[in-house]
Amino acid sequence: MHFADKLMARIKETGSRVVIGVDPDPRRLLGSDSEFRAAFPGKPDGYLLDAFCSTVIQVAKTYACAIKPQAAFFENMGMLGWKSLSLCIQNARKHGIPVILDAKRGDIGHTASAYAKAYLNPESELFADALTVNPYLGPDTLEPFMNMAKQNGCGLFVLVKTSNPGSHALQDLKVLDEHGRPSITVAEKVAQWVSKLGKSHIGKSGFSNIGAVVGATYPEHLEKMRQLMPQSIFLVPGYGAQGGRPDDVKAAFHPDGTGAVVSSSRGIIFAYENQPGLSQDGIFEAMARAAGKARDDINAVALS
Amino acid sequence: MHFADKLMARIKETGSRVVIGVDPDPRRLLGSDSEFRAAFPGKPDGYLLDAFCSTVIQVAKTYACAIKPQAAFFENMGMLGWKSLSLCIQNARKHGIPVILDAKRGDIGHTASAYAKAYLNPESELFADALTVNPYLGPDTLEPFMNMAKQNGCGLFVLVKTSNPGSHALQDLKVLDEHGRPSITVAEKVAQWVSKLGKSHIGKSGFSNIGAVVGATYPEHLEKMRQLMPQSIFLVPGYGAQGGRPDDVKAAFHPDGTGAVVSSSRGIIFAYENQPGLSQDGIFEAMARAAGKARDDINAVALS
Repeated sequence: MHFADKLMARIKETGSRVVIGVDPDPRRLLGSDSEFRAAFPGKPDGYLLDAFCSTVIQVAKTYACAIKPQAAFFENMGMLGWKSLSLCIQNARKHGIPVILDAKRGDIGHTASAYAKAYLNPESELFADALTVNPYLGPDTLEPFMNMAKQNGCGLFVLVKTSNPGSHALQDLKVLDEHGRPSITVAEKVAQWVSKLGKSHIGKSGFSNIGAVVGATYPEHLEKMRQLMPQSIFLVPGYGAQGGRPDDVKAAFHPDGTGAVVSSSRGIIFAYENQPGLSQDGIFEAMARAAGKARDDINAVALS
Repeated sequence: MHFADKLMARIKETGSRVVIGVDPDPRRLLGSDSEFRAAFPGKPDGYLLDAFCSTVIQVAKTYACAIKPQAAFFENMGMLGWKSLSLCIQNARKHGIPVILDAKRGDIGHTASAYAKAYLNPESELFADALTVNPYLGPDTLEPFMNMAKQNGCGLFVLVKTSNPGSHALQDLKVLDEHGRPSITVAEKVAQWVSKLGKSHIGKSGFSNIGAVVGATYPEHLEKMRQLMPQSIFLVPGYGAQGGRPDDVKAAFHPDGTGAVVSSSRGIIFAYENQPGLSQDGIFEAMARAAGKARDDINAVALS
């Protein structure tokens, strides 16, 4: 099945445009003062990590259209982290929840193929539904990812405009267009590639399997980006803990409320913090409440 | 010890400016027709992978200033690959060979810190001497890497101008200056950051711990880059199998032959291919011969 169709069907099924970011920051999750640890007395780190991912997946079953594990937070726990990431991805997929692996990979030729084989290949222990990729090396380096994604019903989200304060330093630089005229920014140039490359594989939903990461923290860019990439699904980070508000994501959506998913991580997955003594059920409920609120807030603007 | 000083000392010790890229492409290494497999009859994939890395490390002891494991080729083998990468890094470091992990990571704030913790932290199973990082997200996203690198005597190599055919599409775009006039390229802009950021931590050798990746396939760019980043060590890929010739790397070096290391992967690590029936010693010797030739060819131009 085409990735965009799968994601659109899931949005219809859950009524949610929220992607829950799975960022198991070891300081918050595994520290001695962790309220999550307190709810699982005596359990080792690996158990806690798996239990955390399982809890998020339980929440995502009802409240999210996808989960987005952040590779870095697993990688920084070594083998323990990799095993847990593998389990998390497989567990979510078993429950029919699309997995967008946020690994921001990017490399040339054979090496890009090797990354694609690691994450977009059904034989991999880390087979995900979609992968975030970095465009700095050029459009030729996206092709190995595109080929494997297309072959296996997967998607890509190309970093176009990121949500961090310094994203302007490179992404907003004005460059010359193909006619030598000062015109567009680096991010807009990348958006043009994404739009063009994406036309090669459009699903029944009308959307491409090649989407774009466009941050919620720069609402003034979202509208332009929406025009440049009409058939790309936007993965919008920066909502919630990073400062993006519901209204800020409005321009990411088409008028019919399609075309974007909004990622929220810390605001949901650590929603149980500062409520000492919560049980395992209490932790689940705190996350679920935060995810339900994010779903409703985002639907309110997407469908307004 | 400062990373640049460590690398400079190692170049002096070995007389080599060659970095051997460790790219254990499973198709070539683990396929049924692999000549490496034939030299280790009956051994399972994990054994072969570890034996391959060990052989490269043996070669590097004499002929290379560093090794550069390519994360993608380990990642695409799942847990087996991660275990082997960890062993490879630890084994090389035990022999005093600096390890530049080519993982091209890049992300924002907390997430960049998590990546830094994964690879530039002595407590990690994957602690390397240096890491390649991607600048697309902006200079603020390099800071968490810089902080951890400085703290632990590690280095960074920022992707500036890569060796692939399509690198021009983004990296060579002309940027407009503050007066709206076409001025420098995106890659040159990144080079300015690298130079500026690098000044914060200069070693006794006069070089910064923040280096730059500048491809050998674009010799016309090397000279400009050398001027823009005088105190950064260049990691020059693209030599050998990717088409870069010894003369092409000349401009990466200062007149005294310092300031750059040249990476070669397939031309060395698969030098045993097409010589069926080689023993384990024969494989080592084929790699060693290729590495020795690369060392001599590069020294000839660096010191001319």
